[in-house]
Amino acid sequence: MGNEATEKLTVVVDAMGGDVVPSVPVEGAVLGAREFGVNVILTGPQDVVNAELAKHDHAGLPIRVHHADEVVEMTDHAAASARGKRESSIGVGLNLVKQGEAQAFVSMGNTGAVMAAALLGGLGRIRGVKRPALCTVFPTKKGFCVLLDTGANADCRPEYLAQFGLMGSVYARSILNIENPRVGIVSNGEEEGKGSELVKESFGLLKASGLNFIGNVEGKDIFEHLADVVVTDGFTGNVIIKTSEGVAKLITNGLREELMRTTLSKIGGLLAKSAFVRAGKRMDYTEFGGAVLLGVDGIVIVGHGRSNARAVRSAVRVAAQAARHGVVESIRQGIAAQPSAEKGA
Amino acid sequence: MGNEATEKLTVVVDAMGGDVVPSVPVEGAVLGAREFGVNVILTGPQDVVNAELAKHDHAGLPIRVHHADEVVEMTDHAAASARGKRESSIGVGLNLVKQGEAQAFVSMGNTGAVMAAALLGGLGRIRGVKRPALCTVFPTKKGFCVLLDTGANADCRPEYLAQFGLMGSVYARSILNIENPRVGIVSNGEEEGKGSELVKESFGLLKASGLNFIGNVEGKDIFEHLADVVVTDGFTGNVIIKTSEGVAKLITNGLREELMRTTLSKIGGLLAKSAFVRAGKRMDYTEFGGAVLLGVDGIVIVGHGRSNARAVRSAVRVAAQAARHGVVESIRQGIAAQPSAEKGA
Repeated sequence: MGNEATEKLTVVVDAMGGDVVPSVPVEGAVLGAREFGVNVILTGPQDVVNAELAKHDHAGLPIRVHHADEVVEMTDHAAASARGKRESSIGVGLNLVKQGEAQAFVSMGNTGAVMAAALLGGLGRIRGVKRPALCTVFPTKKGFCVLLDTGANADCRPEYLAQFGLMGSVYARSILNIENPRVGIVSNGEEEGKGSELVKESFGLLKASGLNFIGNVEGKDIFEHLADVVVTDGFTGNVIIKTSEGVAKLITNGLREELMRTTLSKIGGLLAKSAFVRAGKRMDYTEFGGAVLLGVDGIVIVGHGRSNARAVRSAVRVAAQAARHGVVESIRQGIAAQPSAEKGA
Repeated sequence: MGNEATEKLTVVVDAMGGDVVPSVPVEGAVLGAREFGVNVILTGPQDVVNAELAKHDHAGLPIRVHHADEVVEMTDHAAASARGKRESSIGVGLNLVKQGEAQAFVSMGNTGAVMAAALLGGLGRIRGVKRPALCTVFPTKKGFCVLLDTGANADCRPEYLAQFGLMGSVYARSILNIENPRVGIVSNGEEEGKGSELVKESFGLLKASGLNFIGNVEGKDIFEHLADVVVTDGFTGNVIIKTSEGVAKLITNGLREELMRTTLSKIGGLLAKSAFVRAGKRMDYTEFGGAVLLGVDGIVIVGHGRSNARAVRSAVRVAAQAARHGVVESIRQGIAAQPSAEKGA
């Protein structure tokens, strides 16, 4: 598969990242290699990963294993693992991207460890990017929007948020095919002038940025899809996705309990089952596989530890799509073209 | 009703606060006066409110109208209305509490205007309270918890959050009957050491506060009811309640659409209707009527503009309960007993 690999995009999948390894990442990688016309490299302890791969019919598929000695555990400290475990499936995988042997890296492992490894040991930031941001594709009533930062930077400065607007716009254009994405900033009120000091200062920078900035959006507006790109600090973004997860679980579990309470509602629930399944699919996180770490010099996607093979497969698709659209290059050009006021500080 | 009024608790209801006035507040006030054994005073333009009251059978009920010339609109600027419209139904109502003619004030009007009027023109803060906070009773899988600040202070300092923990504990004890409420702080990770600078500093103060502090809680943990009192800054708290609102709407509307799609699921939906109603009731905001403004020298409850009469009625109940339990006095004592390190700055 050597020559073939150099002509197609190559995506690295961390075979040891996630709650159920290597089975889930390996299965997802096989699906991705089969369906999306990309080469896939699995990183991890060779014997373990090969044994898992052997369980799948992968004859003729462009998939191979690249050995990595170490494994970063979900409980490992992020920065320490980045420094101490360079030979991990994460470190080795990112290095393949750095060396140009692959164009994207996918992991369902320790998010902090992947971020730290990408920044400290691996790819580094795109020149001019102040802080990379985790960017999550988020369900709305009209489809999906992108939300960033969802956890990379708990404390932010206005200049970071302005750059998040730029990076999110590039991503929405590439992944959601939105020509001129509307950018909103999360605030505690719709009107201009509402918000924390951070929001008010960021508002001014975003307004002057040349992006399609529409102003403040409230928590509920995200789901109404007022904006295609929703910008916020990593603390608030993280609270938004976890609150959403919590509410969704509360409602669906509550409904399930109530449906089981009477015979009539049980029958009703059974008859309506297909509707429940379709409604659930509308909010299916496995559709996009994970969050992308924008601002680093390479495509890096980090998914939920409890991702299934379908989510890994989707992450391979999204990674390839981002690489094909030149997301990194577009961010580089966008940042370089920013007025110097925003580059300063 | 004069003598009787002096012996019972009296709750003022802003007859002109809310999206549908005076009909909704007046109906809710009548329900409250009938059901909870409290006196109710309605504030607003006398002729208008009396005409509305006449539509209800209120003979013998301890309810009366207190004239107020002006009305604060939902679009009025908060601080300006507090200064400029002292004779509004809000200003007059708060003054009744200040003068001791009533023990609590309820409004479904302009939240910012009520807060500003309570602070600037009316009740003022309890001595030692750095910032009053809006405190919302929030549904969880095991009942309800209290969340604060949900919008009074977009920018907070660690000392504010420590006091929110104290005020929220007093409120949870009074309204939810929880003896020793567990206090958590919203963060972007469970482990100690995770969080923004604000969270990390507040963590230390809460740990040393003598409250039943359990540490960080994530967005999803709120709904699991890990804590009875959930502390956060007013920006994040506001984002949490509005995100929850948005997700709930997204899920229920999505499900409704899917149920209408096939005949079978339509029938299923009809058979299961009672289950849907019961599930909806679990998250019913009208149960608590609104958010309480803790830290001001009086009981002030502000509800959603689109509250219905049932929500107004609940707010009257909660207001009376808070007054009966001496929430203001307990906060006063709690703040006075705080170590001086937390009183400083």
